[in-house]
Amino acid sequence: MTTPWTEVAGRVRDAAPLVHCLTATVSMSLVADALLSAGARPMMTETAQEAPTMTRIADSLLINLGTLSTDGTQGIPATVSAAVEDGHPWVLDPTAVGVAPVRTALAGELLDQRPAIIRGNASEILALAGRGSGGRGADSTAMPRDALEAARSLALRCGAIVAVSGAIDLVVDVDRHTEVDAGSPLLPRLTGTGCLLGALCAACVVVTDPWSAALAATRWLDTAGELAASRATRPGSFRVTLIDALDEVGK
Amino acid sequence: MTTPWTEVAGRVRDAAPLVHCLTATVSMSLVADALLSAGARPMMTETAQEAPTMTRIADSLLINLGTLSTDGTQGIPATVSAAVEDGHPWVLDPTAVGVAPVRTALAGELLDQRPAIIRGNASEILALAGRGSGGRGADSTAMPRDALEAARSLALRCGAIVAVSGAIDLVVDVDRHTEVDAGSPLLPRLTGTGCLLGALCAACVVVTDPWSAALAATRWLDTAGELAASRATRPGSFRVTLIDALDEVGK
Amino acid sequence: MTTPWTEVAGRVRDAAPLVHCLTATVSMSLVADALLSAGARPMMTETAQEAPTMTRIADSLLINLGTLSTDGTQGIPATVSAAVEDGHPWVLDPTAVGVAPVRTALAGELLDQRPAIIRGNASEILALAGRGSGGRGADSTAMPRDALEAARSLALRCGAIVAVSGAIDLVVDVDRHTEVDAGSPLLPRLTGTGCLLGALCAACVVVTDPWSAALAATRWLDTAGELAASRATRPGSFRVTLIDALDEVGK
Repeated sequence: MTTPWTEVAGRVRDAAPLVHCLTATVSMSLVADALLSAGARPMMTETAQEAPTMTRIADSLLINLGTLSTDGTQGIPATVSAAVEDGHPWVLDPTAVGVAPVRTALAGELLDQRPAIIRGNASEILALAGRGSGGRGADSTAMPRDALEAARSLALRCGAIVAVSGAIDLVVDVDRHTEVDAGSPLLPRLTGTGCLLGALCAACVVVTDPWSAALAATRWLDTAGELAASRATRPGSFRVTLIDALDEVGK
Repeated sequence: MTTPWTEVAGRVRDAAPLVHCLTATVSMSLVADALLSAGARPMMTETAQEAPTMTRIADSLLINLGTLSTDGTQGIPATVSAAVEDGHPWVLDPTAVGVAPVRTALAGELLDQRPAIIRGNASEILALAGRGSGGRGADSTAMPRDALEAARSLALRCGAIVAVSGAIDLVVDVDRHTEVDAGSPLLPRLTGTGCLLGALCAACVVVTDPWSAALAATRWLDTAGELAASRATRPGSFRVTLIDALDEVGK
Repeated sequence: MTTPWTEVAGRVRDAAPLVHCLTATVSMSLVADALLSAGARPMMTETAQEAPTMTRIADSLLINLGTLSTDGTQGIPATVSAAVEDGHPWVLDPTAVGVAPVRTALAGELLDQRPAIIRGNASEILALAGRGSGGRGADSTAMPRDALEAARSLALRCGAIVAVSGAIDLVVDVDRHTEVDAGSPLLPRLTGTGCLLGALCAACVVVTDPWSAALAATRWLDTAGELAASRATRPGSFRVTLIDALDEVGK
């Protein structure tokens, strides 16, 4: 059974889950603004001294490896362990895995901690599955079929639902997958919309199962992106209409 | 004597005070944009190696403990000492005090350095006064009366004016207090509006006494929030109209 | 021969250069959003452990010393060396040089690595050339003639084109200079527009010579600033119209 995305969005708005994000500095404010607009509550502390303690009051955890700071590198393993110990679902967003030495090793270790959802673009999913050299999102030239097989192997290995972002999004489990052909070409022209999708997965997985959560987050962002793009034609105003649309759609 | 808030705003616009902010990464750009729009000038360097030197050219200092980085943790004590030594007023914003181990201890020490103004939500003020376990803003269930008494005890202990943010804002001194029933429900739906209020307090305290400054900053933000909310109904566009309104109101 | 700025902008949009930015936290999202809107691609990793490796996949490098973090301080020298070794052009933006102890020494060392372009305001260029005590942008009281001579001495010393930002912008080489009297008074009322210009220089220098790149970046931003200011009168909405305009002008 898949919970419909509008039902998931409604539950997020009712429950206002506290989502602990260890995420890229460059898109931190977009991610926080988006979570608040979607009805969740962000918490962004990342140091090794505080993050493992503070994650215990959160409802879920997002680990995004983009612009990985030294604080983040040191805080992530203990924070994930604390969240797992407390039974909180967590989401892995392996930004730039494959091309960056520290985070590639780190992402590999984190797979053993069984994330509920993995969110990445095709080249990141391929690299994480050990089937490609990785790369940055916009460079991705991975074929959909390769990405689907890599995603399935990750799902099999660590029990996660894998959300592969692209012009057509994929949500992949061991024995099923769904394509979502929606969204807007303006989404990749704004910094951090991939990070935002990972954070939205972390909000949704508090109120439903990982499969429904990954699918709901994808549809929520794509639907918001389409509405936002009907009101803005360039990236500056699209940032504004997108945050507004996350609050507006699916009600 | 309380200086009227529009008079304080006018002085900030004339004097363009340089406000040194050691503040949460997630809302750093909102705080800087807001200070510039209000007529002040932001400076955000936070390392132990540079911040204590650079604060000497500033007119005031904001210490906000949100998303406390290792750089911030190490730089804060010496920076506050340098500012106090030079006679600069400083503002303490004890974000998440009570629930986060490092910053709870740090906030306690900083009280001895006699901030001019303390800015927090009810649960943070309670925790800082040793009367509650703390918590994140949106979780706050503190009663107004409890917050008032906690604020008064802090004012008595360290000589600060205490600004308690909430649906109704409180500005508290040892022997007087004022309630401000204004603002907009959209303010807490945007990341960092509390941080922004702390920064505005730090700008205002350069040009008037702490009591008038805390009250002026509160009224300035609330008035701007009301104007902004008359032009935007959702968080994305509210961020834009709020920054604009800080430049527009009280002239 | 100077390549016309619209020709340079067109090449950036066609080539989508990957620009590695080690830049101020406070304006990181503005810089990334602006680069994407201009048609380039940002990459913001700054740690000593990853930045020197990752810069090898980039097309150019921006080193901006604003809000210099400990991560940034440690990562910058090795990252510049790696970029230079690979023959990538790099841009130095010596924010707050002169008043900040660590970055003043660091900027001096970096000059030996021969940046293609140096971008700063008059007081920063004077301080970097050893002719002034430095200061923050908005404090600048340097005379245009002094700035021109300081810029020329820097060009002579390290072979860079020097872009001096102000009400009137200067682009300076050893034996020639151009004044650009354009832009908008709203540009300095938004945090990070100077950083943005440095990043735009780094995007342009991938597709043309440093002189044409510095001039093109200056004209591109000034033209976008003028268009943006025709659609917005205050800083909040100006941020939106400016990002949009970078995508719109010069086509």
